Amino acid sequence: MSEAALIARIRELFSPRIGDDAAIVGAQVITTDMLIEDVDFTRSIPLPLIARKSLAVNLSDLAAMGSKPVYAVAAFGIAEWARGAFDSFLLALRDAANAYGVEIVGGDISRADKLVISITAIGETPARPLLRSGARPGERIYVSRPIGGSAAGLHLLQNGWTIDGPPPPQTGYATLEFARSAMRRHADPEPEIALGVALSSIAEVTSCIDISDGLSTDMHHICDASNAGAEIERERIPMFPDLIASGGALGIRAQDAVLHGGEEYALLFTSSLRESDLSARLGRPVYAIGRITERRGVVLLQDGVGKPLEPRGWDHFAHRE
Amino acid sequence: MSEAALIARIRELFSPRIGDDAAIVGAQVITTDMLIEDVDFTRSIPLPLIARKSLAVNLSDLAAMGSKPVYAVAAFGIAEWARGAFDSFLLALRDAANAYGVEIVGGDISRADKLVISITAIGETPARPLLRSGARPGERIYVSRPIGGSAAGLHLLQNGWTIDGPPPPQTGYATLEFARSAMRRHADPEPEIALGVALSSIAEVTSCIDISDGLSTDMHHICDASNAGAEIERERIPMFPDLIASGGALGIRAQDAVLHGGEEYALLFTSSLRESDLSARLGRPVYAIGRITERRGVVLLQDGVGKPLEPRGWDHFAHRE
Repeated sequence: MSEAALIARIRELFSPRIGDDAAIVGAQVITTDMLIEDVDFTRSIPLPLIARKSLAVNLSDLAAMGSKPVYAVAAFGIAEWARGAFDSFLLALRDAANAYGVEIVGGDISRADKLVISITAIGETPARPLLRSGARPGERIYVSRPIGGSAAGLHLLQNGWTIDGPPPPQTGYATLEFARSAMRRHADPEPEIALGVALSSIAEVTSCIDISDGLSTDMHHICDASNAGAEIERERIPMFPDLIASGGALGIRAQDAVLHGGEEYALLFTSSLRESDLSARLGRPVYAIGRITERRGVVLLQDGVGKPLEPRGWDHFAHRE
Repeated sequence: MSEAALIARIRELFSPRIGDDAAIVGAQVITTDMLIEDVDFTRSIPLPLIARKSLAVNLSDLAAMGSKPVYAVAAFGIAEWARGAFDSFLLALRDAANAYGVEIVGGDISRADKLVISITAIGETPARPLLRSGARPGERIYVSRPIGGSAAGLHLLQNGWTIDGPPPPQTGYATLEFARSAMRRHADPEPEIALGVALSSIAEVTSCIDISDGLSTDMHHICDASNAGAEIERERIPMFPDLIASGGALGIRAQDAVLHGGEEYALLFTSSLRESDLSARLGRPVYAIGRITERRGVVLLQDGVGKPLEPRGWDHFAHRE
């Protein structure tokens, strides 16, 4: 059973509401995410960053709905190795919660062989929640910021780099700067909370998702929910700075990182507004990368040629199948 | 750091609200619990029972606050061994949610080496939430049903018995009946939802907790929160049926099971009302087992002698220290 099949079964059994980044219940939006050692992070990531990320991924789900986070609960399965320094985890979680204006009101602790963090975050229902299902043919497709950095950072972390250790010998300055910012993007993602709230107030924004699985897979999520297709122009996708030059020298395939890299937590959304108009209304840049089409499927236009863009982003089960 | 020290630190960092079975936030009560393979259950427990229990322990926390459950979200870290039969897990979870009147509105799935289930349940705030902190000297201490069965069932499951396999050869009928009901009590606990809601409507009920850590530890929780002590009469604690005879023959120490056995999910509460009056108002039996005292500490009265009852119930970290 693939992740998609499992989610389909869960929707069927429990609630057709399941399927957006978070669930709307009355006056609230609620989301839950579990991070597991050796699946979502490794021990090489400092505990404070694991804490920040475990909160950030939940807040990103709320952002994708246009919801402002209000409170959260957290459950921890604490592995032996993490116990001694767990205070650094709690402090970082507290600071992140304060920074995002979220109160952590309760929780559960247990021991575990591997560190597991499960956070549930609850936000206010916006006047008009953003769903995956509102995209209409002809509308522009937007990403909120340059992408590809998280996958690049993950690649480095899986190939001997560490966040706070020394770099490989004879690493040049530009490469080092790139590597550090890519690892940071991966390990310390920033949820687009303010943008999500702003987008929900603009009537011409019709759908939204956060790029957690990867652009290709999340674009398919919007198209599937909206009964539509998409054409993405490869050249218009904003790339994480220096991904081609420094990333390439480090063995990172920029194209894969941009198209399929997960855990970006940029927002992917659709609107009838033009890029300049939308950016002006938001007071910050957003990037039009293509159009919603009537014809189903996602097409990538590159060098004047269109090819199907398969959902090759993160599937939580794929590498075990 | 013991569990108690960790919880104290979490309260200090995050919110003084933390400490009851669930947190009150505006018009809601919220609780979260994580169940981890080989900590909270083993693979010998059928997946449908793991599903039911993972929901039940959360609903029990709401019950202890007097809150009626409304909705929940669930996150699963799915281990390889559980994937093939995960549909049986989902079906059981759906059925349990329907039976308890809870809608599961969202979730998260991931792979994991060990099965992890984290559920967050949200209930309506009762007119008067039940806290741990309201017990006053002179009031009676109550348990909602006979206890000791869960610890007995756990002992059996840790000593070769299985829920659906054949019993050891030459097991007598009474022993078999006892063993089955004890294992069921452990693996398929029943949250006291209706009782919790009823208790919250009775002004003379002053504090409440669910017995998840064990009577001794949870009695200390009430006393600590209420700045009071307790005297419990050993002979008045209602015991799980046949615990002494059949349980004893199976190597179960009835006294330990009753006093310190966790995961009972009976309610432990206090009231100025007499047992007969309170039972009559509730329309069901509840069991007075002692009195709240001004003097701090918990005392167990047995055969006319009082001895300190130390909190020897479940500490999620104790057996690693």
